Amino acid sequence: MLRWTALAWSCLLVSEMYEFNSNGLYFLTSSSGVTYQTFCDMTTAGGGWTLVASVHENNLFGKCTVGDRWSSQQGDNPNLPEGDGSWSNKVTFGTAEAATSDDFKNPGYYDITAEDVSIWHVPNNSPVNQWNMAAILRYHTSRKFLTLHGGNLYNLFKSYPVKYKAGICNTDKGPVIPIEYDFGSDESVTKLYGPNTKTQFEPGFISFRVFNHEQAAMAICSGVKATGCHLEHFCVGGGGHFPEGEGRQCGDFTSFDWDGYATHAGWSASKEVTEAAMLIFYR
Amino acid sequence: MLRWTALAWSCLLVSEMYEFNSNGLYFLTSSSGVTYQTFCDMTTAGGGWTLVASVHENNLFGKCTVGDRWSSQQGDNPNLPEGDGSWSNKVTFGTAEAATSDDFKNPGYYDITAEDVSIWHVPNNSPVNQWNMAAILRYHTSRKFLTLHGGNLYNLFKSYPVKYKAGICNTDKGPVIPIEYDFGSDESVTKLYGPNTKTQFEPGFISFRVFNHEQAAMAICSGVKATGCHLEHFCVGGGGHFPEGEGRQCGDFTSFDWDGYATHAGWSASKEVTEAAMLIFYR
Amino acid sequence: MLRWTALAWSCLLVSEMYEFNSNGLYFLTSSSGVTYQTFCDMTTAGGGWTLVASVHENNLFGKCTVGDRWSSQQGDNPNLPEGDGSWSNKVTFGTAEAATSDDFKNPGYYDITAEDVSIWHVPNNSPVNQWNMAAILRYHTSRKFLTLHGGNLYNLFKSYPVKYKAGICNTDKGPVIPIEYDFGSDESVTKLYGPNTKTQFEPGFISFRVFNHEQAAMAICSGVKATGCHLEHFCVGGGGHFPEGEGRQCGDFTSFDWDGYATHAGWSASKEVTEAAMLIFYR
Repeated sequence: MLRWTALAWSCLLVSEMYEFNSNGLYFLTSSSGVTYQTFCDMTTAGGGWTLVASVHENNLFGKCTVGDRWSSQQGDNPNLPEGDGSWSNKVTFGTAEAATSDDFKNPGYYDITAEDVSIWHVPNNSPVNQWNMAAILRYHTSRKFLTLHGGNLYNLFKSYPVKYKAGICNTDKGPVIPIEYDFGSDESVTKLYGPNTKTQFEPGFISFRVFNHEQAAMAICSGVKATGCHLEHFCVGGGGHFPEGEGRQCGDFTSFDWDGYATHAGWSASKEVTEAAMLIFYR
Repeated sequence: MLRWTALAWSCLLVSEMYEFNSNGLYFLTSSSGVTYQTFCDMTTAGGGWTLVASVHENNLFGKCTVGDRWSSQQGDNPNLPEGDGSWSNKVTFGTAEAATSDDFKNPGYYDITAEDVSIWHVPNNSPVNQWNMAAILRYHTSRKFLTLHGGNLYNLFKSYPVKYKAGICNTDKGPVIPIEYDFGSDESVTKLYGPNTKTQFEPGFISFRVFNHEQAAMAICSGVKATGCHLEHFCVGGGGHFPEGEGRQCGDFTSFDWDGYATHAGWSASKEVTEAAMLIFYR
Repeated sequence: MLRWTALAWSCLLVSEMYEFNSNGLYFLTSSSGVTYQTFCDMTTAGGGWTLVASVHENNLFGKCTVGDRWSSQQGDNPNLPEGDGSWSNKVTFGTAEAATSDDFKNPGYYDITAEDVSIWHVPNNSPVNQWNMAAILRYHTSRKFLTLHGGNLYNLFKSYPVKYKAGICNTDKGPVIPIEYDFGSDESVTKLYGPNTKTQFEPGFISFRVFNHEQAAMAICSGVKATGCHLEHFCVGGGGHFPEGEGRQCGDFTSFDWDGYATHAGWSASKEVTEAAMLIFYR
């Protein structure tokens, strides 16, 4: 599956310059000259999607502990309102091949200039060649919203910091973008999260940078438009402080387990989405 | 010492295709196209051995803390019966050059299809070019046992999960394979571990996936066939929970220090093996 | 900015062999054949400076916690007198592009044979192409002191271990080398640290491996000659144990916050130096 393509900056360029059209691992080169390898989705909606990150929950029982790279590895801590700061810095981690087993972020996350995002929720530990088939949800945006926000999430989150107390619920929402489903539907999105959360969102969107009732910041609400203020049960990533529950909401998958781990009861999310990594693509 | 060999998947292929026969760092490429660099042992028993992993204890006083990648970095936790899950996932870490100073795992661990394993115990912080001479124990298997277990330890441990409560002592042992010594002997193996452990094993073997009396899982008992149920004093790697001693057995080198750090008294291992990394090769 | 230079071992060789003279990311190859990418400063005092490391404080509130790779990630612990041991082992971490956002160490740190060091203090999260302009302090040595200490800091710190209780204040100092300012002055160095620290150092130098009053070891006092024994408020890096203050001095930036975070009062350092990464170059 190795494909070397000199000086291609993204999977979109690979598909345009070389007419490769099969999914797999490709070499890319960033504008600063960093060479890295990542997965290209060459089939969805015309292809050319570059995997730039994955959000993986390694231990929902650990609250902002080792492995919570998209929130904080330093414990729940009001002194670190941005937590590890991964959403808006250039620190990279993980590998494409282990993107469903660990957090992942490559130079494409901050380097590529893109127009849209695509999200796949893939069961943990799935091998690369089964991601597409194994995914429990796949969708993408198509309105080129990233062109208004600096061309990627790195720049978007510079403008909308994932930072405790940087705003308040509803008033200070980041972009909310409608999605097109490649696998799944409004109904299947709604079923991923706990029954109580239905009052808190509208399916068919992706939301960026939201605050909950206690002003804790979260990065992405996948598949939904956040409408309420109890967002910590279905939005992911975050700053370093979640006041409610004595830190029990701090972590990459925040408080997906409020009413028990993967119980799909009350505010708790389903086992399916709790044990799936969220893969983020750009095009 | 750099040797580039296009599309060689293992050190065995390097030695066969290119007739290189000196130890050192080589470039390999996995079947999915990932290029990486690792150490090849080109001399032992015909050569062609690929370094795929090392188990290094960075802090025997820390129990399942940062750096315990072959057990758990999340503290002793019954909610995480497999701990970090490194034995059977595709997460990689470390570098070949630092394999005696930190845990190490490369794509070869899950990618290479091999027949046998070779193990070196090398004093911590030894430089690459002194590993062979500095090793306190070196041995390999020769019965091609991996062909019965999917060709590598990744697949072997998929079949024999290193998971708390997935089995019971003795009844649910994984493979036990006789070894051939390249440096050392039954006697020197026995001396590595604490005097009390002599009742718990028979030297001259390597054992995979064992359970202790409390159903804690361990990955490898190096140099021995486990016969008792107090295995945590000489077997390495593990799941995320060790019930005995309030977590004091949790870690990459489990409970090598039960009767004091490196005292070589009671159940405690010798300083030699406590302060040596366990290097794992495939062929 | 990509520049590939086959088999150049350092930025100095790149500048001599290829006459490249612009700052940016270059590929280097270590003597053991490891290829890596780092930043070359091709302009300061004739150029040829290789970035080999950065010391970044990710959480001054966390005392020897995750991210304190130049001291200890294992908590303040007298059983680990050398902490993580990064100053004198071959473990590598981070990337050049994120050197102002995370700790960084590449193979050049232990592989390159150099004569002098250059230090830049660059505000956290600055992008590579702004490092030079953004730096709050830049200086270098010019007396080829590394030739007396094995050619690099890896070897220097082998001779002068950054280890708790390996010596006592003043008596067991490592090398103290005069510096030439590329940006800054004795006065601006003095202002970086807390007002109380003025009695503890003389500006215009760089000091290696010092001990404080309680025999805690630190690696580098940047810009100054340590003269007192309260060194933990302006020296960085360290072993794994700092007896004073119940561990509150343990960390990459030790006790820069003794009288409050970035207050620049009493013993506390300025916000400028507290929130800047220390970049280490060799030539």
